[in-house]
Amino acid sequence: MEIHPENLFQQILQAKQRLVGIANPTPVMTSRTLNRLAAGEVFLKCENFQRVGAFKFRGAYNAVSRLSDEEKTRGVLTFSSGNHAQAIALTGKLLGVETTVVMPDDAPEIKRTATEAYGARVIGYDPRKESRESVAATLLTDTGSTLIPPYNHLDVIAGQGTAALELLVETRGLDALLVPCGGGGLLSGSAIAVKANSSTCRVIGVEPELADDATRSFRTGKLHSVHNPPTIADGTRTPSLGSITFPLVQHFVDDMLTVSEEEIIEAVQFLFYRTKLVVEPSGALGVAALLRKAKPDLQGNVGVIISGGNIDGPTMRKILKS
Amino acid sequence: MEIHPENLFQQILQAKQRLVGIANPTPVMTSRTLNRLAAGEVFLKCENFQRVGAFKFRGAYNAVSRLSDEEKTRGVLTFSSGNHAQAIALTGKLLGVETTVVMPDDAPEIKRTATEAYGARVIGYDPRKESRESVAATLLTDTGSTLIPPYNHLDVIAGQGTAALELLVETRGLDALLVPCGGGGLLSGSAIAVKANSSTCRVIGVEPELADDATRSFRTGKLHSVHNPPTIADGTRTPSLGSITFPLVQHFVDDMLTVSEEEIIEAVQFLFYRTKLVVEPSGALGVAALLRKAKPDLQGNVGVIISGGNIDGPTMRKILKS
Repeated sequence: MEIHPENLFQQILQAKQRLVGIANPTPVMTSRTLNRLAAGEVFLKCENFQRVGAFKFRGAYNAVSRLSDEEKTRGVLTFSSGNHAQAIALTGKLLGVETTVVMPDDAPEIKRTATEAYGARVIGYDPRKESRESVAATLLTDTGSTLIPPYNHLDVIAGQGTAALELLVETRGLDALLVPCGGGGLLSGSAIAVKANSSTCRVIGVEPELADDATRSFRTGKLHSVHNPPTIADGTRTPSLGSITFPLVQHFVDDMLTVSEEEIIEAVQFLFYRTKLVVEPSGALGVAALLRKAKPDLQGNVGVIISGGNIDGPTMRKILKS
Repeated sequence: MEIHPENLFQQILQAKQRLVGIANPTPVMTSRTLNRLAAGEVFLKCENFQRVGAFKFRGAYNAVSRLSDEEKTRGVLTFSSGNHAQAIALTGKLLGVETTVVMPDDAPEIKRTATEAYGARVIGYDPRKESRESVAATLLTDTGSTLIPPYNHLDVIAGQGTAALELLVETRGLDALLVPCGGGGLLSGSAIAVKANSSTCRVIGVEPELADDATRSFRTGKLHSVHNPPTIADGTRTPSLGSITFPLVQHFVDDMLTVSEEEIIEAVQFLFYRTKLVVEPSGALGVAALLRKAKPDLQGNVGVIISGGNIDGPTMRKILKS
């Protein structure tokens, strides 16, 4: 893939325009305690306050709104049992586009219900017998609808990049930015936005140790994957970076680091008790990195993308019991 | 008590000046879902993001900072097992004033530890054998320190009023303001601030049904009390309004209403799942009123003071299980 940084950043700026009055310009929060523990000024970009409770709305809305009227008439399809499913569903409702979400039969009932509540049609499949790709392929052929995947899509990536762009404007400069990494859509978009605006700000992706495929891919230059990693950070259970996000991460990201399950849980607890924010485990990865004993070597103004706040009751109860 | 509204409001303005750069100018949050359910534009003044996690810091800091140098040298004393204890402790640390907090022996260990962590001396007493007033009286005589009670004190009330004042400025006008009511310090201060700025904005205090002493006092004109009400909203377990807050509530507040325990729990859940805010049960009283079936008759711009976010793990686990 040939990379044109200036062109990619232009797409983020255009996404920003499309999202005005649609996406929430989420608040940037600070915490004296966190500053002290992290030995720097920390700025939390709170995408848990985004519509549908996660940054995913930015990319989904940007991608669907770029379709032609004719494509919109034929509808949009995606596969996801997470925040992207709800983001596509809400986008469809706002733009009057029919949406279909392919979700495994064993996905939590709460995810299915939430996606349907936004007006999407949910198609279940048996993950032991079929792959989501084959189910989706059949549906695409039958309906002529357009696939908007969760991360491996330039318009999705451009939308996700608008969160970091807002943070840069509000903080007037950062020395480092910590970004959770699953499939790499948020990380790619954030890194493009940062590198177009700063020659000094380092962009660091954070993964769970148990789902360290992107870290290994980044270090070796070869695409690694992890299947169904048993991490509590469900937003990062994607098998690997994509054909688009992998080269973007290699080109724009400065470093990757991993955190343990215990560190993720401590970060969710810290955000709950000390900052009064409800953050899902994947959303707490950046704070987990700042709080751990072997802190990354960061100084000055450190931005952290809090990617989402969709945590179910049983998971939060377990975390508060730890 | 003679009431001089203009003078009382001046004290709030002065408190505002004292708190600049010290208290957090807490954010005002909105929620599309809440607007829809409440049938109005709702503005949440998030004092859960205040220092020590509750509005109490405003009043404590204002009161202690008004003491003379000589009084400061002799220290400050209070009785509280709640947010006021931590607010006094942090204030003492910031102003270099020794603080002593009288707390029953059976207060949760977490409250004692948090108060001591801010540098206060905690004096326990056996609530079956002694009253906190008698323990405090002995200490005051012995040390010459100054008592700063949790709500029945004009400087405390003036400090608490600064939250509503910030909300009024940020929202450019409200049609109603919902305020949790325990001892009435926050409610009095809020009402004074509103009435000095608006001839149309209604101020409504909200109490748990199980701790409805202020509502009954308001309706009858006679001071009622409730001892150790078993409400989950621990910040409202105060026995009654005080000699200062009762007349202020009567003079400035337009109405009082009560919510059930179930409604309080639903409000904490709603704030957790839908707005991603960690709010303690007392802090959710205003939202509980907006969400209940028998909604108060409110229209237009409705402000709600979210008074605090200090909820312990076991309580939140119980609420998320409901």
